[in-house]
Amino acid sequence: MAKPSVPNIQETVRSVTNFLERKHIPYHVDDYCAEQLQLEGVPTCRALDIGHKSDLLIVVGGDGSLLNAARRVARDGTPVLGINRGRLGFLTDISPESIPEHLEAILAGQYIEEQRRMLKATIIRQAAPFEKAIALNDVVLYSGEIARMIEFEIWVDGVFVCSHRSDGLITSTPTGSTAYALSGGGPILHPALNAVVLVPMHPHTLSARPLVLSGDSVIEIRISADTDHVPLISCDGHVHLKTALGDTIRIEPLEKTLRLIHPTDHEYFSVLRNKLNWSARSA
Amino acid sequence: MAKPSVPNIQETVRSVTNFLERKHIPYHVDDYCAEQLQLEGVPTCRALDIGHKSDLLIVVGGDGSLLNAARRVARDGTPVLGINRGRLGFLTDISPESIPEHLEAILAGQYIEEQRRMLKATIIRQAAPFEKAIALNDVVLYSGEIARMIEFEIWVDGVFVCSHRSDGLITSTPTGSTAYALSGGGPILHPALNAVVLVPMHPHTLSARPLVLSGDSVIEIRISADTDHVPLISCDGHVHLKTALGDTIRIEPLEKTLRLIHPTDHEYFSVLRNKLNWSARSA
Amino acid sequence: MAKPSVPNIQETVRSVTNFLERKHIPYHVDDYCAEQLQLEGVPTCRALDIGHKSDLLIVVGGDGSLLNAARRVARDGTPVLGINRGRLGFLTDISPESIPEHLEAILAGQYIEEQRRMLKATIIRQAAPFEKAIALNDVVLYSGEIARMIEFEIWVDGVFVCSHRSDGLITSTPTGSTAYALSGGGPILHPALNAVVLVPMHPHTLSARPLVLSGDSVIEIRISADTDHVPLISCDGHVHLKTALGDTIRIEPLEKTLRLIHPTDHEYFSVLRNKLNWSARSA
Amino acid sequence: MAKPSVPNIQETVRSVTNFLERKHIPYHVDDYCAEQLQLEGVPTCRALDIGHKSDLLIVVGGDGSLLNAARRVARDGTPVLGINRGRLGFLTDISPESIPEHLEAILAGQYIEEQRRMLKATIIRQAAPFEKAIALNDVVLYSGEIARMIEFEIWVDGVFVCSHRSDGLITSTPTGSTAYALSGGGPILHPALNAVVLVPMHPHTLSARPLVLSGDSVIEIRISADTDHVPLISCDGHVHLKTALGDTIRIEPLEKTLRLIHPTDHEYFSVLRNKLNWSARSA
Repeated sequence: MAKPSVPNIQETVRSVTNFLERKHIPYHVDDYCAEQLQLEGVPTCRALDIGHKSDLLIVVGGDGSLLNAARRVARDGTPVLGINRGRLGFLTDISPESIPEHLEAILAGQYIEEQRRMLKATIIRQAAPFEKAIALNDVVLYSGEIARMIEFEIWVDGVFVCSHRSDGLITSTPTGSTAYALSGGGPILHPALNAVVLVPMHPHTLSARPLVLSGDSVIEIRISADTDHVPLISCDGHVHLKTALGDTIRIEPLEKTLRLIHPTDHEYFSVLRNKLNWSARSA
Repeated sequence: MAKPSVPNIQETVRSVTNFLERKHIPYHVDDYCAEQLQLEGVPTCRALDIGHKSDLLIVVGGDGSLLNAARRVARDGTPVLGINRGRLGFLTDISPESIPEHLEAILAGQYIEEQRRMLKATIIRQAAPFEKAIALNDVVLYSGEIARMIEFEIWVDGVFVCSHRSDGLITSTPTGSTAYALSGGGPILHPALNAVVLVPMHPHTLSARPLVLSGDSVIEIRISADTDHVPLISCDGHVHLKTALGDTIRIEPLEKTLRLIHPTDHEYFSVLRNKLNWSARSA
Repeated sequence: MAKPSVPNIQETVRSVTNFLERKHIPYHVDDYCAEQLQLEGVPTCRALDIGHKSDLLIVVGGDGSLLNAARRVARDGTPVLGINRGRLGFLTDISPESIPEHLEAILAGQYIEEQRRMLKATIIRQAAPFEKAIALNDVVLYSGEIARMIEFEIWVDGVFVCSHRSDGLITSTPTGSTAYALSGGGPILHPALNAVVLVPMHPHTLSARPLVLSGDSVIEIRISADTDHVPLISCDGHVHLKTALGDTIRIEPLEKTLRLIHPTDHEYFSVLRNKLNWSARSA
Repeated sequence: MAKPSVPNIQETVRSVTNFLERKHIPYHVDDYCAEQLQLEGVPTCRALDIGHKSDLLIVVGGDGSLLNAARRVARDGTPVLGINRGRLGFLTDISPESIPEHLEAILAGQYIEEQRRMLKATIIRQAAPFEKAIALNDVVLYSGEIARMIEFEIWVDGVFVCSHRSDGLITSTPTGSTAYALSGGGPILHPALNAVVLVPMHPHTLSARPLVLSGDSVIEIRISADTDHVPLISCDGHVHLKTALGDTIRIEPLEKTLRLIHPTDHEYFSVLRNKLNWSARSA
């Protein structure tokens, strides 16, 4: 899969397909990408089928492309490898120049496989599941309008936590903790941690703080039935769902984790330092 | 003026008009309020005329009602007094029970008059003013959609300050510094301070910080011409304007300040302690 | 054990010992407390022995007293129960009035037992352990002097994380996340979470953020060898150790957890709401 | 004046004195610096006299050196120019390479003169001034020991503001707002603003926020008479004063401002962007 709108991304995709052809490794390209990029003569596959038909999904693009791909294949358990054609990425860590070298090593079994936890969000209406979506980074409840505070209650594993009046709430995985949640004042969660963090957005009370819970928690957000404003749900900033008065949004761990593939020289803290502009070692 | 949707607000309005009638002081009620509240037999006046026809505007409601009234009469220079029927207010500090006592004193000249600075926001399109609005609390530039960062530049008095990728920007007066700006991490500005504060909303860069500038500053927000997403402007969370690609939003001090009337026992820091739940004196 | 300096704490201690005597349950009182409180005729025991000689340690005081007691008996695995004679406590949740009622239930086996993770800090000098201390809340590295930044490196499980120039670093357990770490901008960690959080104190770089790691992590703080200022270590704000140039401070999970006893109606989120002044359920 | 401990600072000082000699401009070097740097054959002057004997004070070093020099000559009204031999400086903006070029222009009258507000701190004991110090950046009240909260009250212009339990309080000028106050979560104050900001350090209450006041405010910090721990005062992180129980610390504007000289191409926001690693203009 690739993000068609990235300039000259054909070249990067071609360098992957050329490598695979040289090695006689069967592959197929997402049919939408193939069409958009006018890649002729390559075997294609519907996005829907790509997960269960593949042993490895290679994504060319930025972190956003990898998030999309992860949601696509999450339930199939297909491992995902990212080739970076966006800004410096947390998730896509192979540079286009090093494609042959890194693919060679990875296909020879020299790689790191991380299990990244994902979330499943379910809108529950009149006591029944109404709509579902999954997320690798975060599930965000938000107002959609400024100065339109929304009111809701947070419950965890059936226990009341607190009421909230705010612009919304970010529920983030460790993977998402360095994305939107971080800009809202959330902490960084190491990806090996089995945790989720709740980050309030512009909370009305000054004593609201980010709350880190077990990754196995079942979080319920109950939207006040008498508010005049209906909030929205966003998964990874891409999938958008509309709620209704009195809805409950249940957020829980997805049964399957994302299998994220890295080259053997991958190091989380090094990526963190680079992305956050942390100074290197003193002396 | 009054906020018609507050339960039993007629009683509070009546207690004001009764007092004024007893004292033979001529008055009129905003015609929309009079109609909504079914106040019969009271002299009414169009909201448009209320500023230049009055020596004092009495607002019954919460801080939101006072904000609306302030924007309404700002250019007329009419002093404004707030009677609180909302939650604990920063701006409306007379309780309904004490109406006769406080009005008596205030009309006898025993009051504190504060000058509260206001802002004027102008959308400039193709080098010409396109639309205007004023604010007592804040002018907020925002995306309206989650995970839809907007890109813009900030210029102050013609000098480039910085580029921003974020959910938006709050430009707040001292009056607004205890409202939305505070929930975004902004500092509290004492109302006597001639200052504005710029508070970034969920900024992409971790080193963004609130920036306090002279209240005389002319702030320009230049919206990137090649973003695919058009942000909105909100004044005090009520007046909403739509921007277009390449627009500049100019925010500058309104020529007139709001004349805010308080009883003589009003004390800013006491209000602050109560609103922010600060502990009282130790021992 | 009890905190002798609390006014009239004898009464509370007596109400515990009276209950135990009535029930013919053998007990002893920490000898220092007994002497300070002039409790005559009660069996006493050296603080050193109290852990391995008891089936349950009852602490009368505030959270500080319970922290001290926890460090004292941690290695013996003695369960600890707190009776609150301080401010509203996170750890001590039985009020003096309800002593007989709650003790009766607890001794009858009706209680909640939480496992609270603790930390072990070791100063390593010239490649050998030099001094050790344990903590239930936090291990704090700090300068001791204002405007005297200290320089150090953080390593986790042998991997370099970052260099720091700051006033210090708080390494906190979930228990400590609502104490000093919170005032430094750290998140709240649910006590069931196997995690530690690193919170920088007044960091020089604006992009420093709290970092939540697995509770099994071995954290090393390596103090720069050429700084002219030697930082200190504090455990739970009570035990103080002095470091030397070139020292490494190793912080790792203590093998044993604290067994913290609560009445059956204990609820973590309820304590959190009360302590943080969070509003209760909306209507 | 120069900071003797900076490596090879003689060269930079020599390049200043050589320039002045070539131009036949009389000068003298601070006698301590001259001795430490073994500068022979240069006219010297006691630090005490340097302010009133000079028309311009040139400081070679970093921001810390300029802070020291500013406190030294503040009452004499001598303008100060900084040559940067430290890290990137907010206050010292001439690079050693450009000394002749910039000095030539400045001595020819081509420069920007900023008025930077300073603070005067007075410890008042038993109703009388006991000790004084001045600051260009900040006056910091602090505990000196970890987990030793200090208790104090803040009063402004004779009005009670709030009680505090915390590690301390930073009172900062606009100049200091980008220094220690910033690392404590304070906002950036533009140097032209007549303001001070109070930034609580690790406050006990979660609703404490930075408070920006008029620069003309007289701030009083009243230390609780029954605390068992005596806090310290630090000015610019260098001058240290010890308080006693029941002391009041009065912080007010110094009558004179610092006259800070910049080359004509100096621009505050550009320095800010560089120091804070803000991204430049978006394409």
